[in-house]
Amino acid sequence: VLESEFHQWLKKKVPQSKGTLIGIGDDAAVLSSSNRMAVAADMLVEGVHFRPEEASPLEIGAKAVNRNFSDIAAMGLAPHWILVSAALPRGRPEAYIKGVVEGIIQAAERFDVGIIGGDTSRSPGGLVLDVTVLAKIEDLEPILRCGAQAGDRICVTGDLGGAGLGKHLRFAPRVNEGIFLNRNYSPSSMIDLSDGLALDLHRVLDASGKGAIIHGDRIPVSEAARALAKTSGKHPMEHALSDGEDFELLFTLPLEQADRLKKDREYHFSITEIGEVLADPKERTLLTGGSTSVLKRRGYDHQI
Amino acid sequence: VLESEFHQWLKKKVPQSKGTLIGIGDDAAVLSSSNRMAVAADMLVEGVHFRPEEASPLEIGAKAVNRNFSDIAAMGLAPHWILVSAALPRGRPEAYIKGVVEGIIQAAERFDVGIIGGDTSRSPGGLVLDVTVLAKIEDLEPILRCGAQAGDRICVTGDLGGAGLGKHLRFAPRVNEGIFLNRNYSPSSMIDLSDGLALDLHRVLDASGKGAIIHGDRIPVSEAARALAKTSGKHPMEHALSDGEDFELLFTLPLEQADRLKKDREYHFSITEIGEVLADPKERTLLTGGSTSVLKRRGYDHQI
Repeated sequence: VLESEFHQWLKKKVPQSKGTLIGIGDDAAVLSSSNRMAVAADMLVEGVHFRPEEASPLEIGAKAVNRNFSDIAAMGLAPHWILVSAALPRGRPEAYIKGVVEGIIQAAERFDVGIIGGDTSRSPGGLVLDVTVLAKIEDLEPILRCGAQAGDRICVTGDLGGAGLGKHLRFAPRVNEGIFLNRNYSPSSMIDLSDGLALDLHRVLDASGKGAIIHGDRIPVSEAARALAKTSGKHPMEHALSDGEDFELLFTLPLEQADRLKKDREYHFSITEIGEVLADPKERTLLTGGSTSVLKRRGYDHQI
Repeated sequence: VLESEFHQWLKKKVPQSKGTLIGIGDDAAVLSSSNRMAVAADMLVEGVHFRPEEASPLEIGAKAVNRNFSDIAAMGLAPHWILVSAALPRGRPEAYIKGVVEGIIQAAERFDVGIIGGDTSRSPGGLVLDVTVLAKIEDLEPILRCGAQAGDRICVTGDLGGAGLGKHLRFAPRVNEGIFLNRNYSPSSMIDLSDGLALDLHRVLDASGKGAIIHGDRIPVSEAARALAKTSGKHPMEHALSDGEDFELLFTLPLEQADRLKKDREYHFSITEIGEVLADPKERTLLTGGSTSVLKRRGYDHQI
């Protein structure tokens, strides 16, 4: 089963729950008005999300936390608390386990986030870390996936592609960037790029009932994507479109705000406008070198 | 490393976090007054918390959820929302995975709890389920582990011991019982019995800085504990003291309330008074057949 198909089944199967404004299907769930909080959970599995030989214990702990922070960043919110559950392989050196904990603590402290609970268990298999993150909503409105409007400009932070070469272990979640955008602009939709630009953009468009045209030559291709392309036989842009684990933000903005953002000198991170939202949900077009093609629904869709 | 030692290290290592009334160390964390909620997480690992050959998919899903509900019950609260993360072994039949999901949904619906998020991943090892539960606090005060007073009576719900024979997969978490006690009485402390009466009682006494005397012959020994004793060579009471996974509630009550509870006909579940809280934290006594012994700190403490 593909994860995406399994999620479709789950979404139909799991009853819509009372007391939530937003349930399953966005980056985080949003609780009802008397308990305004956003909540998300993300699991990090050895051999799936990292190979033990390439990742240090500190990096593993940090990645488990930062993936969750990226989900909260994609709501335009700040994380406040986490719970961490860990299944720990027997026989792993104590220093290794403590290194993972250290990585968790350092990642949490970077955003002044409290570790308030969790669970530990032995694991007969590899290391599994599951982090649940809670975000107070306070004065900010959460930014959902479903609000993109025709005419909106499509923007991304940072550079894309080739994260598997190392960035997937060492990225900085775009928490401050998400909050900056939420405070000073009105993004009509936002998502974090965990499964690749192409697939995650499709998710925003599906949720919003819209189409899009993407200018391939405007996609900010990372150095890692270019390096990878030298041996993969793929075009660097292909890597930027579908590698996944960039943990950058993709968001849509009304045209006039996108123009204002370009002149804004208040922020010090890279934002690139890569396309436009279209009214027709069936139109998903990639424009490269003067010719158009269908923007494929490719990216990291796990076999489960 | 023993889990208990690892937790001691963790508790010192993890900074006490702002915005929580109760952090790591109780059954659930309690968030600060502007977001009055209790939160807990519990992981269920194949080969550790169940053997695949003895547990049906429905039972596995239900156990993952009910263990968490038991933690919330131990605060005297009701669960409201869960997030479920699942690492799913490749090659497990689709019907098996869907059975697990069904078990999760049924257990949640029993207490009208909404499933609001989570994550799925492939697992190179066995099945791992991590559930995070959120409880609104509303008009009830959470019952902590640390409030036992000298002279309080020590009570347990249900029968204890031998849960490994089947109850650990099929228990009903004591949510309604915990709320009944919280609404109508003032338990000075409460915990759910997950690692065995003896060990969990020590946790309450440690947190409260108190001692206790337990009347061994009053401990409600289950049929399963008696059955197990026939082949284990242990006394049935030994099983009741240290088997773990009973998922019953242990609580302490002022004497006059314990007396009132005995005459109360409003509840239809079994409660047994098994001992008394003592002022001296070093006195942890088990009284059996007219002789006393030290109440050992035995129970289910994982090697991790």
